[in-house]
Amino acid sequence: AKIILLPGDGIGPEVVAAAVRVLQAVEKKFGHSFHFEKQLIGGCSIDASGVALTDSALKACQSADAVLLGAVGGPKWDDPLAKERPEKGLLALRKGLGVFANLRPVKVYPSLVGASPLRPEKLAGVDMVVVRELTGGLYFGKPKCREQIDGRTHAVDTMEYMDDEIRRIVDMAFQLARGRRKKVTSVDKANVLETSRLWRQVTADVAAGYPDVKLENMLVDTAAMRLVSNPAEFDVLVTENMFGDILTDEAAVLSGSMGLLPSASLGSDGPGLYEPIHGSAPDIAGKGIANPIGTILSSAFLLRYSLKLEKEASAIEMAVEKTIASGRLTADLGGTANTTEVTDSILDVL
Amino acid sequence: AKIILLPGDGIGPEVVAAAVRVLQAVEKKFGHSFHFEKQLIGGCSIDASGVALTDSALKACQSADAVLLGAVGGPKWDDPLAKERPEKGLLALRKGLGVFANLRPVKVYPSLVGASPLRPEKLAGVDMVVVRELTGGLYFGKPKCREQIDGRTHAVDTMEYMDDEIRRIVDMAFQLARGRRKKVTSVDKANVLETSRLWRQVTADVAAGYPDVKLENMLVDTAAMRLVSNPAEFDVLVTENMFGDILTDEAAVLSGSMGLLPSASLGSDGPGLYEPIHGSAPDIAGKGIANPIGTILSSAFLLRYSLKLEKEASAIEMAVEKTIASGRLTADLGGTANTTEVTDSILDVL
Ligand SMILES: CC(C)[C@H](C(=O)O)[C@@H](O)C(=O)O
Ligand SMILES: CC(C)[C@H](C(=O)O)[C@@H](O)C(=O)O
Repeated sequence: AKIILLPGDGIGPEVVAAAVRVLQAVEKKFGHSFHFEKQLIGGCSIDASGVALTDSALKACQSADAVLLGAVGGPKWDDPLAKERPEKGLLALRKGLGVFANLRPVKVYPSLVGASPLRPEKLAGVDMVVVRELTGGLYFGKPKCREQIDGRTHAVDTMEYMDDEIRRIVDMAFQLARGRRKKVTSVDKANVLETSRLWRQVTADVAAGYPDVKLENMLVDTAAMRLVSNPAEFDVLVTENMFGDILTDEAAVLSGSMGLLPSASLGSDGPGLYEPIHGSAPDIAGKGIANPIGTILSSAFLLRYSLKLEKEASAIEMAVEKTIASGRLTADLGGTANTTEVTDSILDVL
Repeated sequence: AKIILLPGDGIGPEVVAAAVRVLQAVEKKFGHSFHFEKQLIGGCSIDASGVALTDSALKACQSADAVLLGAVGGPKWDDPLAKERPEKGLLALRKGLGVFANLRPVKVYPSLVGASPLRPEKLAGVDMVVVRELTGGLYFGKPKCREQIDGRTHAVDTMEYMDDEIRRIVDMAFQLARGRRKKVTSVDKANVLETSRLWRQVTADVAAGYPDVKLENMLVDTAAMRLVSNPAEFDVLVTENMFGDILTDEAAVLSGSMGLLPSASLGSDGPGLYEPIHGSAPDIAGKGIANPIGTILSSAFLLRYSLKLEKEASAIEMAVEKTIASGRLTADLGGTANTTEVTDSILDVL
């Protein structure tokens, strides 16, 4: 299997290197053969070639079996007026791979309850997957531009959805819920947005095909509230791109650290894209202390969803769980271990 | 002074009635004369006249000194495909009054720390005002429509801002911060949205006029995270309409109950609009158990901002604080008092 590595910027290279060590251990232990190839994305790509993702890097990703990404961005490329920004590479990659569904599970490890800002009793039973639409909405809608009107500056972004774009992502959420607690919470702002009203209609339609799964519609402001006041009520939460960006980061806090959480971005076919949900963390880049677990768990998703290696994926997840329970933790979780030590510990269990 | 009352739907009439009792007590105690006039808005207006806000109701509001609103909406008018929805009245009112700045303070009452889902140590020092842009962005941008394209349904909303719309709201945030802890956190999504890039530019420009106030730019996903993981870091948070809708509800959770929180919506001149941040709560409507404090504190804001009666506003706020400390609380805060009892207790202190 061919796996493209996109380490990116900041702590990206450190956490991707850690995940590669784990994937290589799986390769040996289970007798597989993975072929790794590195490509540039984000700020490092801008430095090298002027663009955040070259055509050839995108092509390499498109023809691979899966893509593992670290993180993009950093203060060096932060000028909001710059023509080329690191994030542009990430957005082009998502669009270019057609990965419309971003899956972000949030769970709370029993031994880490103390790391969460929420009261322990609020965390009991928290186990959700947020399914975020990833290739539509405000991120990609046109026009997205700026113009001068009578001496005033006017800026525009467009939130747009086609019914079929909604249908496929909501359908994926229902599929997922079937294998879980059979509840889908669809989040929109149907009392204000036309796209949300279409979203709600299509969702009702999809739900009719899943009589065994319970559908709840929730306004995005209410969801932002209930993710904190009552997080255990969520099983599968499905929502559009911008709302998903906000709500997944909010939900991530429950677990105690963004550094822990993986994500998988999937299309209807073609390679999947796997990345931790944390950013490039420029403040700790190069120090070797970043939490590698989000990326290591992303590589487990890669094995499960793109390579159909369920046993191998579970082995990584169990090794991570044991390591967390053993208290071998990086600084973001109050521990003293560095990236290598946490990875070593996971490899030991494996 | 002429005050228009818009009780609206659900618990709206109950909480507005409670606030009127408090305003009448202030009238007597401080020797003022308030003239109250009721108008319809929301579902009750749709039932009466087919529209969520009649022209004559809007005109009455425009020519008043201030407007006190309860809440709008309810299951009866919830069909996302209905042509007229209760929220339309609220949006038309905000636009018609030109109240572009929605101020929502969030603080944690010491005696209510136990009602918050956050750990007590996270709540120490939480005291922020969210300044939400209220008459622009995704809520009002055009086109906002639906069309058929080759058998597919396409829905569009538009996020748009003019530089002057950004300037006036950010300026208000800096003004406010001057009288507080001198820190403004401007929240945007400048790595993806054109409107946010303009927002960030204009904000930098405004900030140059306030060298004594610290400006921090934060991405909306990061803000959603930090409002829970580190809420005490915020003093004045300013953001666009849709982000503000989501973040204010999230922040409201910190205080222990949405029922507690007031808001003021202000323009550059003309009457202000005052409303609790909670909704119409159809599940408890008519039972006389709604928490009146959000609306009573909104009436204090009305006195402060529209009638310039600072002493009177403070008197209400102190009476509310004493009542909360006394433990006379409605069910949303774990108490057993009803709406009338809590209001009586506030009137007693007054
Ligand atoms: C880097 C940024 C463009 C990206 C997004 O907004 O999608 C990130 O926040 C994420 O959630 O993956
Ligand atoms: C009722 C709804 C239109 C409104 C909004 O989204 O502004 C409400 O959620 C609020 O925050 O005041």
